[in-house]
Amino acid sequence: MQCIPLFYYMKKITIINGPNLNLLGTRETAIYGDMDWDTYYKSLQEEFNGKVQLNSFQSNSEGELVNALQKFGKECDGIVLNPGGFTHTSVAIADAVKAIQADVICVHISLVHKREKERKNDLIQAYANGYLSGLGMDGYKLAVECLL
Amino acid sequence: MQCIPLFYYMKKITIINGPNLNLLGTRETAIYGDMDWDTYYKSLQEEFNGKVQLNSFQSNSEGELVNALQKFGKECDGIVLNPGGFTHTSVAIADAVKAIQADVICVHISLVHKREKERKNDLIQAYANGYLSGLGMDGYKLAVECLL
Amino acid sequence: MQCIPLFYYMKKITIINGPNLNLLGTRETAIYGDMDWDTYYKSLQEEFNGKVQLNSFQSNSEGELVNALQKFGKECDGIVLNPGGFTHTSVAIADAVKAIQADVICVHISLVHKREKERKNDLIQAYANGYLSGLGMDGYKLAVECLL
Amino acid sequence: MQCIPLFYYMKKITIINGPNLNLLGTRETAIYGDMDWDTYYKSLQEEFNGKVQLNSFQSNSEGELVNALQKFGKECDGIVLNPGGFTHTSVAIADAVKAIQADVICVHISLVHKREKERKNDLIQAYANGYLSGLGMDGYKLAVECLL
Amino acid sequence: MQCIPLFYYMKKITIINGPNLNLLGTRETAIYGDMDWDTYYKSLQEEFNGKVQLNSFQSNSEGELVNALQKFGKECDGIVLNPGGFTHTSVAIADAVKAIQADVICVHISLVHKREKERKNDLIQAYANGYLSGLGMDGYKLAVECLL
Amino acid sequence: MQCIPLFYYMKKITIINGPNLNLLGTRETAIYGDMDWDTYYKSLQEEFNGKVQLNSFQSNSEGELVNALQKFGKECDGIVLNPGGFTHTSVAIADAVKAIQADVICVHISLVHKREKERKNDLIQAYANGYLSGLGMDGYKLAVECLL
Amino acid sequence: MQCIPLFYYMKKITIINGPNLNLLGTRETAIYGDMDWDTYYKSLQEEFNGKVQLNSFQSNSEGELVNALQKFGKECDGIVLNPGGFTHTSVAIADAVKAIQADVICVHISLVHKREKERKNDLIQAYANGYLSGLGMDGYKLAVECLL
Amino acid sequence: MQCIPLFYYMKKITIINGPNLNLLGTRETAIYGDMDWDTYYKSLQEEFNGKVQLNSFQSNSEGELVNALQKFGKECDGIVLNPGGFTHTSVAIADAVKAIQADVICVHISLVHKREKERKNDLIQAYANGYLSGLGMDGYKLAVECLL
Amino acid sequence: MQCIPLFYYMKKITIINGPNLNLLGTRETAIYGDMDWDTYYKSLQEEFNGKVQLNSFQSNSEGELVNALQKFGKECDGIVLNPGGFTHTSVAIADAVKAIQADVICVHISLVHKREKERKNDLIQAYANGYLSGLGMDGYKLAVECLL
Amino acid sequence: MQCIPLFYYMKKITIINGPNLNLLGTRETAIYGDMDWDTYYKSLQEEFNGKVQLNSFQSNSEGELVNALQKFGKECDGIVLNPGGFTHTSVAIADAVKAIQADVICVHISLVHKREKERKNDLIQAYANGYLSGLGMDGYKLAVECLL
Amino acid sequence: MQCIPLFYYMKKITIINGPNLNLLGTRETAIYGDMDWDTYYKSLQEEFNGKVQLNSFQSNSEGELVNALQKFGKECDGIVLNPGGFTHTSVAIADAVKAIQADVICVHISLVHKREKERKNDLIQAYANGYLSGLGMDGYKLAVECLL
Amino acid sequence: MQCIPLFYYMKKITIINGPNLNLLGTRETAIYGDMDWDTYYKSLQEEFNGKVQLNSFQSNSEGELVNALQKFGKECDGIVLNPGGFTHTSVAIADAVKAIQADVICVHISLVHKREKERKNDLIQAYANGYLSGLGMDGYKLAVECLL
Repeated sequence: MQCIPLFYYMKKITIINGPNLNLLGTRETAIYGDMDWDTYYKSLQEEFNGKVQLNSFQSNSEGELVNALQKFGKECDGIVLNPGGFTHTSVAIADAVKAIQADVICVHISLVHKREKERKNDLIQAYANGYLSGLGMDGYKLAVECLL
Repeated sequence: MQCIPLFYYMKKITIINGPNLNLLGTRETAIYGDMDWDTYYKSLQEEFNGKVQLNSFQSNSEGELVNALQKFGKECDGIVLNPGGFTHTSVAIADAVKAIQADVICVHISLVHKREKERKNDLIQAYANGYLSGLGMDGYKLAVECLL
Repeated sequence: MQCIPLFYYMKKITIINGPNLNLLGTRETAIYGDMDWDTYYKSLQEEFNGKVQLNSFQSNSEGELVNALQKFGKECDGIVLNPGGFTHTSVAIADAVKAIQADVICVHISLVHKREKERKNDLIQAYANGYLSGLGMDGYKLAVECLL
Repeated sequence: MQCIPLFYYMKKITIINGPNLNLLGTRETAIYGDMDWDTYYKSLQEEFNGKVQLNSFQSNSEGELVNALQKFGKECDGIVLNPGGFTHTSVAIADAVKAIQADVICVHISLVHKREKERKNDLIQAYANGYLSGLGMDGYKLAVECLL
Repeated sequence: MQCIPLFYYMKKITIINGPNLNLLGTRETAIYGDMDWDTYYKSLQEEFNGKVQLNSFQSNSEGELVNALQKFGKECDGIVLNPGGFTHTSVAIADAVKAIQADVICVHISLVHKREKERKNDLIQAYANGYLSGLGMDGYKLAVECLL
Repeated sequence: MQCIPLFYYMKKITIINGPNLNLLGTRETAIYGDMDWDTYYKSLQEEFNGKVQLNSFQSNSEGELVNALQKFGKECDGIVLNPGGFTHTSVAIADAVKAIQADVICVHISLVHKREKERKNDLIQAYANGYLSGLGMDGYKLAVECLL
Repeated sequence: MQCIPLFYYMKKITIINGPNLNLLGTRETAIYGDMDWDTYYKSLQEEFNGKVQLNSFQSNSEGELVNALQKFGKECDGIVLNPGGFTHTSVAIADAVKAIQADVICVHISLVHKREKERKNDLIQAYANGYLSGLGMDGYKLAVECLL
Repeated sequence: MQCIPLFYYMKKITIINGPNLNLLGTRETAIYGDMDWDTYYKSLQEEFNGKVQLNSFQSNSEGELVNALQKFGKECDGIVLNPGGFTHTSVAIADAVKAIQADVICVHISLVHKREKERKNDLIQAYANGYLSGLGMDGYKLAVECLL
Repeated sequence: MQCIPLFYYMKKITIINGPNLNLLGTRETAIYGDMDWDTYYKSLQEEFNGKVQLNSFQSNSEGELVNALQKFGKECDGIVLNPGGFTHTSVAIADAVKAIQADVICVHISLVHKREKERKNDLIQAYANGYLSGLGMDGYKLAVECLL
Repeated sequence: MQCIPLFYYMKKITIINGPNLNLLGTRETAIYGDMDWDTYYKSLQEEFNGKVQLNSFQSNSEGELVNALQKFGKECDGIVLNPGGFTHTSVAIADAVKAIQADVICVHISLVHKREKERKNDLIQAYANGYLSGLGMDGYKLAVECLL
Repeated sequence: MQCIPLFYYMKKITIINGPNLNLLGTRETAIYGDMDWDTYYKSLQEEFNGKVQLNSFQSNSEGELVNALQKFGKECDGIVLNPGGFTHTSVAIADAVKAIQADVICVHISLVHKREKERKNDLIQAYANGYLSGLGMDGYKLAVECLL
Repeated sequence: MQCIPLFYYMKKITIINGPNLNLLGTRETAIYGDMDWDTYYKSLQEEFNGKVQLNSFQSNSEGELVNALQKFGKECDGIVLNPGGFTHTSVAIADAVKAIQADVICVHISLVHKREKERKNDLIQAYANGYLSGLGMDGYKLAVECLL
């Protein structure tokens, strides 16, 4: 995490979204809001334009998320991870978070503790560097700021 | 779920089978019977010929099943889902079932309650519209009938 | 389960309903619908007229349900059982289901898994031959079809 | 709950006692006291004479208690229910309490929480309109007052 | 428990059998043996002829069993109780056993601990005076001897 | 608890309210109603005027509630205690209830069993002399009557 | 278990007592009675004189009890086992009971279910052929009779 | 939450710290860092100077924290709450968070999930509007930003 | 913990008592004995006169106990802590014990393990330097000796 | 498992590695050692050269592992399976292990029992033919030897 | 516990150490210190010379420890017991402690609560007269003092 | 673990078998096979002749196994331990394994996870250096190889 003023270094940050988060804006809008990901991500890119090299990845597959964590964990300085439903069931993703060197901030759009009981068991949180929940889409923005 | 009498509307229903169900007919035949899926599916197609647009999908991958639920949940009127081993471990599939608009009937070939203890915890059932178990391969047929 | 073509044998099936199911149509109609049992049963009799010897029994008493299972389990070919609140508390009914020779299909009008936690523990399901839930009153009809 | 002064309306209240409460006065008198039910009930009738149409029912059978709740739940304005040992084991009685329209106050003579562990699980309380325990036989009187 | 030599006093003992024990000899004969109750009871009467006033009662209804315990608990010197499936679910029967003055010996034909997990929770045993299991039908005979 | 007829002895009763009960009338009015404590308490004082020396105490602090129980437990004949949120977490208040000599009746405005799971564990109830819940503000009045 | 009438075969039965049962008659006499083992055993030998070859063994050591079970399980026809405190903690003794061919009847002097919670977990019962508890010292006599 | 451009409205935000957080900078510095609260708070005030009316409150007493939440919950627009050890034990603070109208963001300096097991049970989180953990002292700054 | 022989250094030790321990001698004397704290403390002061600078503090308030631990943990060499009912519910006191530098010995007058189940969960013990229980009031004396 | 001496049959064995095991040598080297898989696998191939047809497969995807098990379970004589993080969460892999005919030996590099609690629940072990853990990379070699 | 001044009575106290405590000074010295038992015991004998008849016994066998407790429990006035690993697994030793008449003080060198979870379950503590832990070897000395 | 080429050092390894393993070949042969230990051990000695100084020890007594572990843990380079039934109940053996310096490999003949639930809790595994199960008698041979 160096910041060389002359040859200005721009941090690389990847946002990784887990299963069903491609449905943002259409799924359970009372909980997740009605903004879709592409619209939100565009505004994010504008906000951090010239400050961060932002990247975005989504998959419904646990294996692809592990692959992505391994890949971006090497290439990037930080990762913003919303593991979606895998939060509660994936030791493999937890292992990947533990294995990589990039800082990882976990983000949840809604307050997970407000929801069903099986959503209270979080296997990944303990291996992350930070955790944000309940702040809506803004959680992603704040997580990027944390990593800066 | 419209039924336009003039230009007769034929409902679209997709049967989605989870992991190891491609082994039907060869695996644990004492529990699952010895009829393989292709033979059974052909008989099903004949039975509903002209009544339903039947479709069949199988995958051993949780991510592909989530993808399939998202895709067919938009294109079809109903889904018959046998989540196999993911019944007990996949919050991601449960989320997909909750997110889509098509009606979903869960089907299990054997009576899950008769089996090992870890097969009693069902994460998906609560988000489906109906649930059938213990009726053998006929469960698929009955589920299709329920959706009509 | 014989089918003697000449002196056509008509299967005998009894539907046994447990406690508070005599209130169908008036109790928690958001969950159970507003059709009362007599109306529904009449339509069922018409539907299976000439195909099945249908019979119906209801009691709020665990002991009478055990008696009924023992009696109809000898006289009939199949039993459709909705144990109502005893689903979660009666080992005696479970024992009766296990003891009799007729096939037993358990039916629940609503998706039990969607409801309160103490309704998730099912003592009887494991001894039945099949299980249907969440299909509304149609569950009874489908269960009769399964037994044919 | 109207109170028409001219044609004075007298509320109907039924007290329903569960299993072994017919033994009041002889059973575990250290906990339940030594007054028998008939003596107590007579004093109760005198106290509310001209104010309430009081009625009393006892059974050791879960099914008869469900029947009584269904019947008196229709005919009466309020029910005072001491489910005795069924407090901890009867979903069927809980369902009946939920199904009926009369107000139900649960009464326990002793403080259930002071007793054995399996007497702490109360399946019915959550569906009642009020709950009193530990006040001895006076609990019945206070429950009737609550319903007025 | 007096024994007046001159006017020889013959003890009264009632055997109370719970749900589905009327099926002895036909139900799960691998566990319960193939002797039916009437045959066995006749041999028991002969064995204790002139020594005990033996009586036998069976019911599938929890309420009738509570009634019987209250009635015979007053009239008899001892009770041999096989609560069947109510062993694991009836606080009401446990309360009745605790309330009565006759000695109660619990008998189970098979070794309950060898069977399914939900058959390990015994609500009644703790209130009895003795407990026998796994000795087959002979358990009844030994229990009567214990009470002498 | 003496009652000297000539110099008429008037019982002293203190109502002790726990944390957040000072917000009555403004907080979660769907559950707790919209009457504030001062208004209700004034009506209570009028009702028992000349019959009871009524006193009222509220604190959000566990320690002050223990102090109050120790103090009023010596000075008063009875205490009406609504421990609010400390119901589920305070062994110290339970110890104080057990230590004092005045009779203690626990009162809860709503039916605690109807609410969230962590509100089902009651550490104090077992040490009280009586328990009332679900009767709204009237619970306080009834509790005072119980103590008379 | 043969019974050759001519050269009359006398069954060999060994009573094996576990830890602290050598203190019978002095330890917790309210629960275990005040008769010491030697006195009781002498009366037992007299009772079965000429009918059984009775033998008695006691040890406070789990290992010696396993040794004894292996030895007497080969030499004897039946074993009466009171595992004392090892009832709740010894898988090794349970394994020995399972491994040997002699019939094993477990005996407990007091009703274990009436006692402390950690005495409810019985690791050995499930591997025995019969189980008696709560019958005092007579349990040993009845167990020998069972084995005859 | 109005923003009147002319008479510029400056939001009021109070930071409330629970027990032992007055020891920041000296206690378990490996987990909590070595910056003390006053130093950090001064930098926070400078950062938000002219933007927010910042206020800070700390107490080791559950009751005072409930008082503070009630008071500042009325006076302020937002509250940043670090409940410290009360996170895991205080229903009273949870009730206060639920009762007040100001938005509440919960902040934890370390990742609570990384620590001892009893620190995983969070009673308060579910009633907050947002939750941040593991971000060190910066969590306070981010929480203030969230509230703006 | 220096011991400068010339200018003899006298250790400072504070005894901190939690809730309801101000009632010693009057509360549950069967468990806690009938000696009140002042009498006992005077004898303690005499015993350690000239050897230790003894100090005593009691509060019923968790917050004041945390304050006292922070304060005396800085000023003293050792602390003897009897957390009373907070033993089982206070993470805040446990945190304070962990945070301070003075040695802390936990003392309980009775054997906590002999009492009710919810008194078996001890949140504080693990952070202390020593633990004594069941030794009556002498536990305080021994704890002071340990700290010397 | 035939061994035809003349036309020497060489067994086919596939090693299947689960998620994050592609990071061997770089991830948590204190636990997993610093040898990467390719180096180790080469040495394995040399060791078994001419004795076994060795094959190696790795994937981070549960579905691909199920596919691989189905495929190699048909083509090979034995499978050495290290399910990595799926050990604790995959019923689908457990089902595949049960469904195939090749012998399966499970291998874990570290002693799973020494690690975090959620790594103690092993869903797959029970369906394997053998299990090795804690032997480092040598576990793979020993597993291959077992299969020979 | 008599103290006859003329023929001065010297109390007999036996220290009983459980399994692996013979390794003191060599085993896990970070927890248990590096002083071996013989050295420590010699210093103890010197300290109590002329005041107590001290005795020491160690065994790795549960049975021998039960034997020793029975023997010394009769011969001695007090017993200092460190049950080592049997603390958590031996009902037999707990029974022996309960059965004997000598006072028993349990001693643990380290603070058991600071260690692994399975060391938190203490089966013996509840039957002792006192309990000390975390005081290192000095715990033995203090326990002897308690018994005087 | 030195290997001095000139004066060739031959490692000493002791195999320690726990309770009932002396019955190998006669007990539950479906699970444990029908080869007895002496025959197998002889073949093992031949196999490792000149390579290892092999030694074998068996006992049914927990104490003797602790003694043996302490003794051979000092004299030998490695220990192969099959704790039999003590696997699930002995903290004392676990402590001995942790205390000694020789490497310990745990071996189980059958796959413990395939068996009864109480055989899933393994207290010793976590302290060993390696663990093998399900490989039949060959497990011993492989364990010796691991130690070389």
